[in-house]
Amino acid sequence: MTDLTLALDIMGGDQGPHIIISAAALAINSMPHIHLILCGDSDIITPQLAKNHLSEHPNISIIHTTEFVEMTEKPSAALRTKKNSSMRLALNLVKEGKAQACVSAGNTGALFAMAHVTLKTLPGVERPALITSLPTHDENKHVFMLDLGANVVCNSEMLYQFGIMGSVLAEHVDEVENPRVALLNMGEEDNKGSDHIKFAATKLQQNSQVNYIGFVEGNDIFTNKAEVIVCDGFVGNVALKTCEGVARLLYDKLKSTSKRNLFAKIIGKLLTSSIKKLLKPLNPDQYNGASLIGLRGIVVKSHGNANINAFYAAIIEAVKETERQVPEKITKRLEQGLLQRS
Amino acid sequence: MTDLTLALDIMGGDQGPHIIISAAALAINSMPHIHLILCGDSDIITPQLAKNHLSEHPNISIIHTTEFVEMTEKPSAALRTKKNSSMRLALNLVKEGKAQACVSAGNTGALFAMAHVTLKTLPGVERPALITSLPTHDENKHVFMLDLGANVVCNSEMLYQFGIMGSVLAEHVDEVENPRVALLNMGEEDNKGSDHIKFAATKLQQNSQVNYIGFVEGNDIFTNKAEVIVCDGFVGNVALKTCEGVARLLYDKLKSTSKRNLFAKIIGKLLTSSIKKLLKPLNPDQYNGASLIGLRGIVVKSHGNANINAFYAAIIEAVKETERQVPEKITKRLEQGLLQRS
Repeated sequence: MTDLTLALDIMGGDQGPHIIISAAALAINSMPHIHLILCGDSDIITPQLAKNHLSEHPNISIIHTTEFVEMTEKPSAALRTKKNSSMRLALNLVKEGKAQACVSAGNTGALFAMAHVTLKTLPGVERPALITSLPTHDENKHVFMLDLGANVVCNSEMLYQFGIMGSVLAEHVDEVENPRVALLNMGEEDNKGSDHIKFAATKLQQNSQVNYIGFVEGNDIFTNKAEVIVCDGFVGNVALKTCEGVARLLYDKLKSTSKRNLFAKIIGKLLTSSIKKLLKPLNPDQYNGASLIGLRGIVVKSHGNANINAFYAAIIEAVKETERQVPEKITKRLEQGLLQRS
Repeated sequence: MTDLTLALDIMGGDQGPHIIISAAALAINSMPHIHLILCGDSDIITPQLAKNHLSEHPNISIIHTTEFVEMTEKPSAALRTKKNSSMRLALNLVKEGKAQACVSAGNTGALFAMAHVTLKTLPGVERPALITSLPTHDENKHVFMLDLGANVVCNSEMLYQFGIMGSVLAEHVDEVENPRVALLNMGEEDNKGSDHIKFAATKLQQNSQVNYIGFVEGNDIFTNKAEVIVCDGFVGNVALKTCEGVARLLYDKLKSTSKRNLFAKIIGKLLTSSIKKLLKPLNPDQYNGASLIGLRGIVVKSHGNANINAFYAAIIEAVKETERQVPEKITKRLEQGLLQRS
């Protein structure tokens, strides 16, 4: 395997740098071919590395900065004023080719804005998108959904490109042959939805490189009808957060039901853990991170509340995308689509 | 209580007229002050009434027609060609003042198109909306959500009016004092979302009759932050159907987990029923119907797959909206808003 370098934003997230450094330790111990550049306060990083028996490890280097982006900071302000933040320095490393990917658990809006400005979009890409994978009824299969909030409003060209980008991720990261791509709509019939969705459908149909299967509705996100589901960022964000909301509601209701008597209590205890397991992938960036795709570089966003395993999963996602050259594959697939249209 | 008359579309829905007539029987027996006009094939209705011991009941009359709207028919085609359908005749009765409300389990798109054309919108209302109530973490409280798919794209005035209409329903049907109204957005901060959502927020803020509380995200639909949540029909439809999808996914996963061994099997059995109970209100039109509000008359849509209790619940919803004069209250509240703005 080729050696590869990842830049980690050590100061992002709600849980503190020790979580991220512990995840980095897991990664270094399990993947000897990766190099990690830790961006953040070396006064914090150095003792944490020592604690993880990684002092002066040849595959770890530190870029020192005490500046970081607050979780509540406005993206526009962070972009303007935080040029030496751990997040920005990690992205700069990718831009300069010193790292292939950046992983951050920091402020999503700021990461998106900084990544967009620093790395720029791939040739021909209108806008990058936030993508993640969700569980389906089939335990061994996932569905990639995008955009999840990077773009409030999307035109048909953007939706079309998201279909292509999602398809590349499903094919090369999830190893699905000929992934089925669908547009999220309020009905399955051709005449449903807004004009830009209908135009996007026509464009996807015309691209022989994409296995476009038509419209799906919200209740089919999890039924394994498609490996890639495309929607605008507003709809994707609401759908994803509604998932979390329903999962929490059901969990809460089952918990309160199980408090009613001793028997129910015992069952409830047993249930709690299995439901927790089910709910985890419904909060997907907490589980395996969400990726910003369409950029000249790989950026994986871990949940602000990520624990060690969750941040480790985000590192693995970044490694996979790097090894499988996702940005290059997207560029190639987009070019093929353009050739077909010309 | 004042006598009131409801027109029922007997031929709509997937379950056949006997379900609807059995629900009508429940309603007639439990609410002696209501009259029902059953629109549909009298050759089917008459024996079903006899079976329910309701032959020649003074509070039931029949409008005979053999024409009906197919569940898969295009709304535009139904509107043009099905002028003598059971659905259309039921709506005509409301238009002519012979009934105060119409209840149908038929084709949603056709019902919406026909109701809009037949009944027209209330003075000042831009577009009617589809609204239903959803469960929250607090067992005794619901949240009304609109629009759920009647309008693909909504401008700020429509969202503003939906806020007012939802507020009236929460206040008069659910008896909530000063219901909290929120706009569904992809973040809670003022600068989030599309321009039309921000404009709608400003308009709602300026109306002192509406208790507007700001933006909420998808994960807060069920957390009892607001009694009314407003969004465009596309987003509402996706959110609602995603709820159904998640609920089914969790149910399915728990069921398959519980198959793994005998102990899990026993627990699974016990769970199945309690989860089923929880899932019911997440498929809300199956539970208590969805209303089309903003029209000069009351229209309640029961789920196509409604069983007797679900259709009965839709009848009760129609009775409540009639008794509490929802359309008149909406007109009044809109007028007050206009006065404030002028």
